[in-house]
Amino acid sequence: MINVTIWNEFVHERRDEDVKAVYPDGIHKQLERALTPEGFAIRTCTLEEDDHGLTREVLDSTDVMIWWGHMAHELVDDSIAEAVAQRVREGMGLIVLHSGHFSKPFKKLMGTGCDLKWREAGEQEILWAVNPSHPIAEGIGENIILEHEEMYGEFFDIPTPDEIIFISNFSGGEVFRSGCTFSRGSGKIFYFRPGHETYPTYYNQDVIRVIANSVRWAHPAATAKPVYGNTQPIRSLNTRELV
Amino acid sequence: MINVTIWNEFVHERRDEDVKAVYPDGIHKQLERALTPEGFAIRTCTLEEDDHGLTREVLDSTDVMIWWGHMAHELVDDSIAEAVAQRVREGMGLIVLHSGHFSKPFKKLMGTGCDLKWREAGEQEILWAVNPSHPIAEGIGENIILEHEEMYGEFFDIPTPDEIIFISNFSGGEVFRSGCTFSRGSGKIFYFRPGHETYPTYYNQDVIRVIANSVRWAHPAATAKPVYGNTQPIRSLNTRELV
Amino acid sequence: MINVTIWNEFVHERRDEDVKAVYPDGIHKQLERALTPEGFAIRTCTLEEDDHGLTREVLDSTDVMIWWGHMAHELVDDSIAEAVAQRVREGMGLIVLHSGHFSKPFKKLMGTGCDLKWREAGEQEILWAVNPSHPIAEGIGENIILEHEEMYGEFFDIPTPDEIIFISNFSGGEVFRSGCTFSRGSGKIFYFRPGHETYPTYYNQDVIRVIANSVRWAHPAATAKPVYGNTQPIRSLNTRELV
Amino acid sequence: MINVTIWNEFVHERRDEDVKAVYPDGIHKQLERALTPEGFAIRTCTLEEDDHGLTREVLDSTDVMIWWGHMAHELVDDSIAEAVAQRVREGMGLIVLHSGHFSKPFKKLMGTGCDLKWREAGEQEILWAVNPSHPIAEGIGENIILEHEEMYGEFFDIPTPDEIIFISNFSGGEVFRSGCTFSRGSGKIFYFRPGHETYPTYYNQDVIRVIANSVRWAHPAATAKPVYGNTQPIRSLNTRELV
Repeated sequence: MINVTIWNEFVHERRDEDVKAVYPDGIHKQLERALTPEGFAIRTCTLEEDDHGLTREVLDSTDVMIWWGHMAHELVDDSIAEAVAQRVREGMGLIVLHSGHFSKPFKKLMGTGCDLKWREAGEQEILWAVNPSHPIAEGIGENIILEHEEMYGEFFDIPTPDEIIFISNFSGGEVFRSGCTFSRGSGKIFYFRPGHETYPTYYNQDVIRVIANSVRWAHPAATAKPVYGNTQPIRSLNTRELV
Repeated sequence: MINVTIWNEFVHERRDEDVKAVYPDGIHKQLERALTPEGFAIRTCTLEEDDHGLTREVLDSTDVMIWWGHMAHELVDDSIAEAVAQRVREGMGLIVLHSGHFSKPFKKLMGTGCDLKWREAGEQEILWAVNPSHPIAEGIGENIILEHEEMYGEFFDIPTPDEIIFISNFSGGEVFRSGCTFSRGSGKIFYFRPGHETYPTYYNQDVIRVIANSVRWAHPAATAKPVYGNTQPIRSLNTRELV
Repeated sequence: MINVTIWNEFVHERRDEDVKAVYPDGIHKQLERALTPEGFAIRTCTLEEDDHGLTREVLDSTDVMIWWGHMAHELVDDSIAEAVAQRVREGMGLIVLHSGHFSKPFKKLMGTGCDLKWREAGEQEILWAVNPSHPIAEGIGENIILEHEEMYGEFFDIPTPDEIIFISNFSGGEVFRSGCTFSRGSGKIFYFRPGHETYPTYYNQDVIRVIANSVRWAHPAATAKPVYGNTQPIRSLNTRELV
Repeated sequence: MINVTIWNEFVHERRDEDVKAVYPDGIHKQLERALTPEGFAIRTCTLEEDDHGLTREVLDSTDVMIWWGHMAHELVDDSIAEAVAQRVREGMGLIVLHSGHFSKPFKKLMGTGCDLKWREAGEQEILWAVNPSHPIAEGIGENIILEHEEMYGEFFDIPTPDEIIFISNFSGGEVFRSGCTFSRGSGKIFYFRPGHETYPTYYNQDVIRVIANSVRWAHPAATAKPVYGNTQPIRSLNTRELV
């Protein structure tokens, strides 16, 4: 059983009628509903809760965290953002959605500005699968067509991804590396572009399938915890003479 | 259930007494024995069989192939080697062990010479796990120590691996990228260095664990088969005028 | 001074009036003309010459080869294709243009099928620079807009590129990894998508600039020639006892 | 002319007699001396200067910065460390040496803990060149042998490097990814392991050659400055209807 924590800023959905119309209970609740059939143990939490819902206990018992945020990135406490990033380095998976590209945990883990081009014009996005050997693309056709989405365009200021799973074409002419994986320490990260708050993107079955796949992929591997610091040699050091 | 086919050249074990002493039934049979508890459906086949045991039917029903060869690479039929490589491109996983670096299927898939340095001196190899987020390293400590192995040294003439999982230190001073992943089309490849025929390397529990992990990792993802060739546009082409 | 050999199939330009109208002397001659101001020492050769113009002497004195082919890939002699690939492994740079994705040397070096989607509809291609630290993108703006090009679409069946420099958006909805680098042995390879024979793509200053940049980037590094085979230890092997 | 700024903490060399014996004027002055024949325009600065010598003017006029620090990382002002990291994202090259792995600018750019194993036992390090097509390896043989160095061992907690140029073998049994490249925004980073303060490593001609090569490699490319934010479409958006 994979323990998933869905974190949502949950501000747009309460302030803006057009967002509320799409996600009346919040994006986190729609994600929870859509992912429940996958058999994950799911918790949700939001910005306004104490510690944003991200207590030590919650972090320590989370295998994979899903993060959606947009207008309130700066209201996330620095020490909590750092705790999230540190849990990733220690093995927790992290799925960063859409405008989460500018979230504090993601920026801390990337080391770059994470900026991009954008346009709210409801244009068509076509995400092409460019890595047919990757489990994150399971069950998806050769592309996912979203009739209306916010455009994100390159240059996307991220480090070279470990893997690129999807690349988007937007009607207006831009492209975007829309599905990217990264590893940081013992943790795996997947950035997935779609999900503007005014469109019903998280009701799309292919989008949900990708997120579900990525949760399974990002589940921590049962690997050894790295050991650091002063260490004894395994082998005698009297080996410097050339033979 | 993962269908695994273990292919072994099976020449050393019948000619050389010292090899027969270590692997009396052949390397393939020891691998089969060691991997059976993993729950795979395992078949073995060898060079001397008709079509080297690699008929169309066997290839088509194999999810992951394990390959060990050394002195008889040139006796593998070109068309069969190409059929194996083609099945990898179509999704079959391939685990290439030790001297299989010079096998025809591996060379075809790499596009490089696949040469390396070597020395048969029974020296100590220490494989260090350098990718703690990767499932191939599950259940292994921070290193695997093999008291006696053949040395393989850099430069190892392979393309840049997608991922490096293990790097070896040899007593004599060399290093080697000992666990490397590659993708080719819809298929995943793992090259794993240890396994000289005169040492009991495939009785080592950590070595077997890595091979078992890699079989699960290389199992074909249920992704869409790529479509090639002349294609219709998804979107109207009357879009060339600048807006 | 970089010694550049431009190889062109030179078939379309003699058979098809519409191609001849664009490249009356052949694509190779237009590339030569456009690249001459860069200060390279340029030779051109074509399929119909003895050994396709690719004698041992030509190969050995070439630093970087540019390759354009399309309808006559199969007429390239296997041993010459292998000689080209082998020279790349030994350090010669290789710039593969457009339909050269299906050329024998490129396929040998990739190890994959190199297939893709295509459409001849004269649609708009926008190539986006996605690697602003890379010398191949020098002097180019954030994109290159080609009003009419053949479409190439994903999945492009290549191994994971070492670096992706450009990604294309096509009007019809596709994307393509249009500028990709690979290393093979001591050699560097750059695949660059644009250049259908019926469009004046190689008169575009940005396209030429990218090719010129890639020639300089692919120029062989003055590195040590790898040493392979049986080798002596650098350090005493009496090191197996644990300390 | 490449403008190089060598930054050195310059604490060990004034406190410890054994370090002073090796680098009487400081590591920065030895690096300056050794790199001067390369034709770079070199400046040096140290921790104790105002703003650690890293004023806005110095940063803006630096093409490539070389960084050595060890015991006083925490004394580097946060805002100056961030200014260095930001200049890298904007294009400045950064060469991080040895114990600089724990420096503030490097950690900010990596997003990871950057920890590792270490041992001060004066053991032999052999750095193997594993990327024979890379300009950073120019003029170096297949390895560099340092008779006495501090050991650094894996797991080295960095993101997957863009390229691995050198891997080290240590007598005691460890390995280390000793020469790694990264890109961040428009800037290029090279981490190079050797250089413990008690050994004459920066008098070694091969080590200096690698650093000089990396300075040339990291010199900012003359690429377009990325544009971010709200943007107009290049192409008409009336394209959503399927054709």
